[in-house]
Amino acid sequence: MLLRMSTLFLRTLREDPADAEVASHRLLLRAGYIRRAAPGGFTWLPFGKLVLDRITEVVRAEMAAVGGQEVQFPALLPREPYETSGRWAEYGDDIFKLTDRRGAELLLAPTHEEMFALLVRDLFSSYRDYPVLLYQVQTKFRDETRPRAGLIRGREFLMKDAYSFDLDDSGLEAAYAALRDAYQRIFDRLGLDYTIVAAQSGLMGGTASEEFLATTPVGEDTYVGCADCGYAANTEAVVTPPAPARDPAAQPAATSHDTPDTPTIESLVALANERRLGDRADWTAADTLKNVVLAVTAPGGKPAPLVIGVPGDREVDLKRLAAVIAPATVDMFDDWASLPSLVRGYIGPQVLAGLGIRYLVDPRVAVGTAWLTGANEAGRHAVHVTHGRDFVADGTIEAAEVRAGDPCPGCGTGVLTMRRGIEIGHIFQLGRRFTDAFSIDALGADGKPVRPTMGCYGIGISRAVAAIAEQHHDERGLVWPASIAPVDVHLIAAGKGDQIAGALALGSRLSGLGVRVLVDDRAQVSPGVKFTDAELIGVPIAVVVGRRFAEGYVEVRDRATGEREDIPVETLAEAIASRAGISGVPSA
Amino acid sequence: MLLRMSTLFLRTLREDPADAEVASHRLLLRAGYIRRAAPGGFTWLPFGKLVLDRITEVVRAEMAAVGGQEVQFPALLPREPYETSGRWAEYGDDIFKLTDRRGAELLLAPTHEEMFALLVRDLFSSYRDYPVLLYQVQTKFRDETRPRAGLIRGREFLMKDAYSFDLDDSGLEAAYAALRDAYQRIFDRLGLDYTIVAAQSGLMGGTASEEFLATTPVGEDTYVGCADCGYAANTEAVVTPPAPARDPAAQPAATSHDTPDTPTIESLVALANERRLGDRADWTAADTLKNVVLAVTAPGGKPAPLVIGVPGDREVDLKRLAAVIAPATVDMFDDWASLPSLVRGYIGPQVLAGLGIRYLVDPRVAVGTAWLTGANEAGRHAVHVTHGRDFVADGTIEAAEVRAGDPCPGCGTGVLTMRRGIEIGHIFQLGRRFTDAFSIDALGADGKPVRPTMGCYGIGISRAVAAIAEQHHDERGLVWPASIAPVDVHLIAAGKGDQIAGALALGSRLSGLGVRVLVDDRAQVSPGVKFTDAELIGVPIAVVVGRRFAEGYVEVRDRATGEREDIPVETLAEAIASRAGISGVPSA
Repeated sequence: MLLRMSTLFLRTLREDPADAEVASHRLLLRAGYIRRAAPGGFTWLPFGKLVLDRITEVVRAEMAAVGGQEVQFPALLPREPYETSGRWAEYGDDIFKLTDRRGAELLLAPTHEEMFALLVRDLFSSYRDYPVLLYQVQTKFRDETRPRAGLIRGREFLMKDAYSFDLDDSGLEAAYAALRDAYQRIFDRLGLDYTIVAAQSGLMGGTASEEFLATTPVGEDTYVGCADCGYAANTEAVVTPPAPARDPAAQPAATSHDTPDTPTIESLVALANERRLGDRADWTAADTLKNVVLAVTAPGGKPAPLVIGVPGDREVDLKRLAAVIAPATVDMFDDWASLPSLVRGYIGPQVLAGLGIRYLVDPRVAVGTAWLTGANEAGRHAVHVTHGRDFVADGTIEAAEVRAGDPCPGCGTGVLTMRRGIEIGHIFQLGRRFTDAFSIDALGADGKPVRPTMGCYGIGISRAVAAIAEQHHDERGLVWPASIAPVDVHLIAAGKGDQIAGALALGSRLSGLGVRVLVDDRAQVSPGVKFTDAELIGVPIAVVVGRRFAEGYVEVRDRATGEREDIPVETLAEAIASRAGISGVPSA
Repeated sequence: MLLRMSTLFLRTLREDPADAEVASHRLLLRAGYIRRAAPGGFTWLPFGKLVLDRITEVVRAEMAAVGGQEVQFPALLPREPYETSGRWAEYGDDIFKLTDRRGAELLLAPTHEEMFALLVRDLFSSYRDYPVLLYQVQTKFRDETRPRAGLIRGREFLMKDAYSFDLDDSGLEAAYAALRDAYQRIFDRLGLDYTIVAAQSGLMGGTASEEFLATTPVGEDTYVGCADCGYAANTEAVVTPPAPARDPAAQPAATSHDTPDTPTIESLVALANERRLGDRADWTAADTLKNVVLAVTAPGGKPAPLVIGVPGDREVDLKRLAAVIAPATVDMFDDWASLPSLVRGYIGPQVLAGLGIRYLVDPRVAVGTAWLTGANEAGRHAVHVTHGRDFVADGTIEAAEVRAGDPCPGCGTGVLTMRRGIEIGHIFQLGRRFTDAFSIDALGADGKPVRPTMGCYGIGISRAVAAIAEQHHDERGLVWPASIAPVDVHLIAAGKGDQIAGALALGSRLSGLGVRVLVDDRAQVSPGVKFTDAELIGVPIAVVVGRRFAEGYVEVRDRATGEREDIPVETLAEAIASRAGISGVPSA
C-alpha cells in the first residue's frame, strides 16, 4: 500500500478543537483520523478507518484462534424477543426505539443475547451440537444521556460481541477462561496497558463478570486496586468486608438527647464531643449512622421508599446503588407527605420497621454495633442505638462509597487505591437467563432436555482506538503501536526537487515489499510543516528524504523514542524490517 | 483456513422453506448461508459472511484501483442536513425516522450525499484539493413497504456508496467513466451477467444515470433492450420517439356522436367501426385517446388534478409516471365533486384548458394528430379531435407503458424486447444539487469561488450475493464462482475410518498452501448425505476421500461442470492450483 499525502483525504488542524476535552479526542481530530458528524457520532476518515480495520483484524484473528465463528445479525430488530427477555423495559431510554411504516415497534439492538440464543435453538437440537462460540463485529447504537470524550462514549460505535453456548457450568467456565485469555492476547497485541477488574454484571444478569479497563486518568470508570495482592475491582463490584457481629445486649442502653443546630454530620459530631454524649469525647463521623431515604422503582412498578443506613463519614454512591438494584431505578425520595411520621433531618432506624419501610444497611453496620443517629424527634439524636436491639435491618446493601485507604477485600491486609480506566472489554458468565427466557433446550445423551448456559463477551473496537490514543501520545501528537498503525512508514520528502521523486521511488520499493507506506509528496509545503504533521499523525517510523539524499542517505526517525539515524538508502528496507512489529517486510 | 463440518455453525435444510419464492432466497436458506431474523432482515451465518466479505474485498480493491479512499459515516444522523437538501420530506416513509431521548429527530440514512458534501467542505477549501473520490461500505436501512425475495429487497442491507467531487463537468464525466469501468471490472470478477441500462435518476436528481442490472427472470426491475443496436434502458428511462407534428388544419372537423354501451375501449372501437364514425371502419384502440385523471401531490402540498392523455391501446404505467414526477407523488383522482363539469367515462381534452386542469400527453399524441375520444357528454364520443386545434396539451409526459415490439429509441429501426434484472449497481452524475443546497464552494485559481459537482455510485453488496446465487445455481444447489466462494475446496471424507483422518491431513496441507478448505469430517453422516450437502453448499471443487484413498487416489469433482476425476493424492495441490480462479495456491 502506497498513499500519497498530496491526494490523501487528510487535513491536520493546527488548533485544538474547542469541544475536545481528552487527548484522544483532541489528537484524533487534529491529526485527521475522525470528524464529528452527529451528537455522539463520528466519521472515520481514511487514516482512522485504517486503524479501526487493523484493530478489527486483530480481534477477528484471536476470536478465530479460540474457535469463534463469525456471523452478523441485523441491527434493527423487532421488539418481541427483547420483550420476552425483559430487556425492552430494562434498557428504557438507553436504546433507540422506533416504529416502522406499519406501526411495528423496532429497536436498534444494544447487544444480541436474545437473537443468538434463538439462532442456536434454530440450528441446534442435540447435545452433540454443543459447545459453540459465535461472534459478530457490528455497529451498535445507544441513546447515551451525555455522549462525551469523542470515541469513548458515543451513540454509535463498533463492537465485537461474542456468545458461548455450553451444556454445563464447567463448559461455560472453560469458554469464559478461553475468552479471558484471548482478550489478554488481543489487548496485548493492541499495545494496551489494562487491568482486569471484577465487575458487576448489571442488566446482563449472570454470575461472574470481569471488565478489561485500559488504565488512564481520563477513564470514566473508577476502580480500586490493592498493591499488596493484585486485587482489582470496579467500584460497583467491591465487596465490603462485613464488621464482626457482637452481642447487642453488651451495649449501653440507647438514650436520646437535645442536639440543637446540628444540620450536618460535622456539627453533630462537634456537639456530641462538646457535651460528652454517652460519656465520650472521641466521636467521629464514622460513629454516626446516616439514614438516606430513596425512592426505588421496579420496572413497570411504582416508586416505593427505601432507607439506606451508612456510617456518617460516607456518602451513598448512586452508581454503586444503581448497579445493585438494577433493573429497578432509584431517585431521591420526595413524597414526604405520604410518610408524616418521619422527621426529616432526624431519622433514626428505630421506627422504620413499625412504619413498614424497608431498611438496608452498609455491611459495616453489623449486628451489635451501636450508633449515634436520629431520634425521630425534631432537634434530637440518640446514642447507643444498637443493631439487633433497637432496630433490625432488612438486609445489607453495597451502596456506600468506596474510598482510597479502605481495607482490601482481597487480602484483608492491604489498602485500596483508586484508579481510572476506559472499559475496553467485558466478559460475563451469563448462565441461563436467556435460554430460560426462550425455553431453549438441547436433547441430552439420555434423551432428556438439557438447558444450555451462555457466556457473552464484548470488545469496544472503536473505543479501543481512543484508549490506544490515550496511552500512546505525547505533547506533539499520536504515537501508534506498530501493530495497528495506519501505515508502517511515513516517508517525508524534505525538499521540492529530487527529494519528492526519491521519496516516491523509495515508497514504491517498500510498498512492493509489503510495507504500508505514506509518502508526504506535497510540493507547496515546507519541511517543517511536514515534520510537525508527521509527529501529529504518529506513524511509528518516519523516513526523511532530505539534503543527504543526494549522497545516498536518508534519516530514519523513531516516533516513540525520538531516535534519529542516517542510513544508506540501500539498507532502508532492512532497517525497517529489523524494527520490531513491522510485519510483512522480508528481512534482507 | 481450515474449517471442519463437525464444528461449523452450518445446518442444511432438506425442505424448501415455505416463504422463499426465488431460488437465491431458497438456496441460501437451505444451504445455511443466511437465516431470517426480522421482517426484511437476515442473519449472515458463517458461510454467508465469508461470501459477503469476499465480495466486499473485490469492491474495495477495485475502488482503491480508481483512487477511492474509504471512510465511514454514522448511519444514525440528525434531521437537519436532510431537511436542507429536501430529502427528509422526499423520502417520506421510505426511511426510518426516530426521536432520541431529548426529542431530537434522527434518521437512519439511506445514502450520504449530504454528509459527504459537508465533509468535503469541512476539509477542502482550495481548487488544488480537488478532485476526490470517497466511499464507504455500510449497513443501510430502508422502510420497504414490502420486503421480499430474501436479500433482494430487505430493510437492512450492505451497500458500498461512493461520491466523486470535481470542479467542472468534464471532471465529473471522467470520474463517472472511471467508476463505470470499475463497476464493470467488479461485476465481471463477481461472475455476474449484467446489462448497463440508461436509468432515471429519481430522487437523486442529476443529469446522467445508469443502472447495472444482473439479468435474471426473477429480477424486479424491468428493462428493455434492442438486439439490433445494444440499446438498453430501464422502462422508467425509455424515451418515446415523438410522432411527427402535422398541420392541425389538415384534419377534418371534429364531430361528436352517440356511443351507447361503450364502457371499454374495445367496445368503443367496435361501435366506431360498426357505425363507420368519421367514415372509417378501420378504428383500432391506438386511434383512441384515453384521458386518465390523477391526483398529484408535491412534497408538503395538496393534491391537484392532472389528466394524462395516452393512446387507448396503452395503460398509464404508474411506475414510469412516479419516476417522472418524483418527488411529487400520484394517486387515483377521487375528488369528483370538485370537478362537476367532468363527465366520467366521456372525458375529452377539449374542455380541460377551460377548466384550468393541467393536461399532459404521451409523445405519440403529437400536434396535428386526430383522435377518437370523449365528447364530455354522457354517452357521446367525438372523432377527429385534433391536437393543436381542438385542444392544446400543457406538455408531454413519459407515462405510457413500454411494450415489447415498440420501436427502439436507440437505432429507430430495431424493436424493443422486455427483460428483467436485479439492480446491483447504480451510477449518477449528480451535478450540483447537494453542493448548491449547502452553498459549498472551493476557492478557484483566479480567487473566485467554484462550486464542485458530484457523482454518486452505489453497489448493493448483500444484494449481489443473491444476484450471484440466482445466476449460479442448478436444481441441486448453489454453484459459486471461485472468486467469491466461501471456501475453495470442500474435502469430503466418504468413510468413517482412515478417510476422516486422511481428509483432515489433506486439508491441513492445502490450508498451509493458502487454500481455503472445508473438511466434511462428520462421523455419523453417510457419504450420500455429505455429497448432497456439498452440492447444495456449492463450493467450486469437491475432493472425495473415499474407497480408493487406500490406493493413494482421491476424486476431484467440479461443481459447475459435474466432471469427476480420480487423481493421485500427491498431485492434488497442483490439480487445485491449475483450476482457474483459485487464488493463493502456488502451482507446483
